[in-house]
Amino acid sequence: MFDSIIIGAGPAGISASLYLKRANKNVLVLYYGLSELEKAHQIDNYYGFEKGITGKDLYLAGINQAKNLEIPVKNEEVLNIVMNENFYYNVVTENETYEAKTIILATGNKRLKPNIPGIKEYDGKGISYCAICDGFFYRKKKVAVLGNSRYALEEAAELSNVTSDVYILTDGKELEGESSFTVIDKEIQAITGEDRVRAVLFTDGTSFSLDGLFVAEGIAGGANFAKKLGIYMEGDKIVADDGMATNVPGIYVCGNLAGGLLQVNKAVYEGAVAGLSAVKYINEKR
Amino acid sequence: MFDSIIIGAGPAGISASLYLKRANKNVLVLYYGLSELEKAHQIDNYYGFEKGITGKDLYLAGINQAKNLEIPVKNEEVLNIVMNENFYYNVVTENETYEAKTIILATGNKRLKPNIPGIKEYDGKGISYCAICDGFFYRKKKVAVLGNSRYALEEAAELSNVTSDVYILTDGKELEGESSFTVIDKEIQAITGEDRVRAVLFTDGTSFSLDGLFVAEGIAGGANFAKKLGIYMEGDKIVADDGMATNVPGIYVCGNLAGGLLQVNKAVYEGAVAGLSAVKYINEKR
Repeated sequence: MFDSIIIGAGPAGISASLYLKRANKNVLVLYYGLSELEKAHQIDNYYGFEKGITGKDLYLAGINQAKNLEIPVKNEEVLNIVMNENFYYNVVTENETYEAKTIILATGNKRLKPNIPGIKEYDGKGISYCAICDGFFYRKKKVAVLGNSRYALEEAAELSNVTSDVYILTDGKELEGESSFTVIDKEIQAITGEDRVRAVLFTDGTSFSLDGLFVAEGIAGGANFAKKLGIYMEGDKIVADDGMATNVPGIYVCGNLAGGLLQVNKAVYEGAVAGLSAVKYINEKR
Repeated sequence: MFDSIIIGAGPAGISASLYLKRANKNVLVLYYGLSELEKAHQIDNYYGFEKGITGKDLYLAGINQAKNLEIPVKNEEVLNIVMNENFYYNVVTENETYEAKTIILATGNKRLKPNIPGIKEYDGKGISYCAICDGFFYRKKKVAVLGNSRYALEEAAELSNVTSDVYILTDGKELEGESSFTVIDKEIQAITGEDRVRAVLFTDGTSFSLDGLFVAEGIAGGANFAKKLGIYMEGDKIVADDGMATNVPGIYVCGNLAGGLLQVNKAVYEGAVAGLSAVKYINEKR
């Protein structure tokens, strides 16, 4: 049992971990994929670096900083976060399931929206980004998940609770992992329909009819977890109070996922605030 | 004419300067005396330093970071800040007077309160910390300034506008600079009085009667300037809005002087916010 699991190892997540560790809490940081920070070539406006620093160097320094303080930082994809019967949280990764009293979402805010004709038009009209949120509306219907990652498989598994007619469309990519679902690896040309989605057209001229398409490209982001956990959002930003607490007890957010200035210093400060709030919550719940 | 003058070269002040400079604004940083940061031996919880960093190293790195971006950072004592006839600000230092469109107060919040018996009891009852605020109540009365710095001389000069009976009490220290006022350099034992201050007792057994004592030990801090400028405060913290703007147009605050978490990351973030707000103000006023 961890006091806190932090999802994301950028400025916000690592900063939060430093404050939890300092308060002697048992904390785990999980991350996967590239950080938004790594793309920044040169950062001159983050205080403390005489000659500036590259985004990548800062990102790696942060992870090492946490590791030097004996904070475990693991490169492991998080597939799902669910509240368990003890009102704690199970964090399901590709490797195992961890339990924690608090969760800090610090994944950043990049979200892969596939650039396929029709995908925006049918958003909410047969196109969904969250199986657990919308799956219920597709009971006994024919649905597909768009994606080729473990996260896509997780979404397909979720959908299999409501219908046995589940497919995976990889859009020409190779599936990462093994699937018990029917996989179609043709390249997609467009999504079509009338009032609602009706079919996916492939570049080879064939088509595939369906009632619902669940987009799950790339890895699951904080916004995906937030929706599943019933966290209140405004657009793709998670809404938080002054202490970076979300509306769901024990779940905090920091950094770009919380909106506002997309700056390292803002992420770092919010990480500190979220970490301190989690410490307080853990101490009070004890 | 500067677009912005920042008082203080700690994390808050330097961070603000980086954002003004990036927006191509003409900015000057003035600092004097030791920073609160310099006292911190080892800082492990500021993001980005693998092995942590000492307060002094971080402080010096910040000043060099600004200088490397060609931001002038001058070690010069600020004695006074006044609004001028153009609704800009004159910043009076020991050497010269600078004019600026905006001011960012980032002095930190240390304040030297002398540990003299009676000084707390008579606070507001003949003991004052601001000549321009309270001098009016001592018209034609006998007053003294407690202090030996240039700031003390500045306070005495301010008082000379309302009364000709102005003394300087150095409490045994040597006066820094030259004074046209009568200087008493005896060591002080206590402040006495009845309802209000009546006299200062010296360790040699003698005493000095007076109506008011203006404390001006050490250097002037942000709180001193704030009071003179009519900036709204709560206790010794300056009140600011979300953009770190004070109630006085063009004056911003950031870091410990604004209260809240006394952490480097908070000061750095607020510096960024104050800097960006100042940029916006300068652009709109143009």
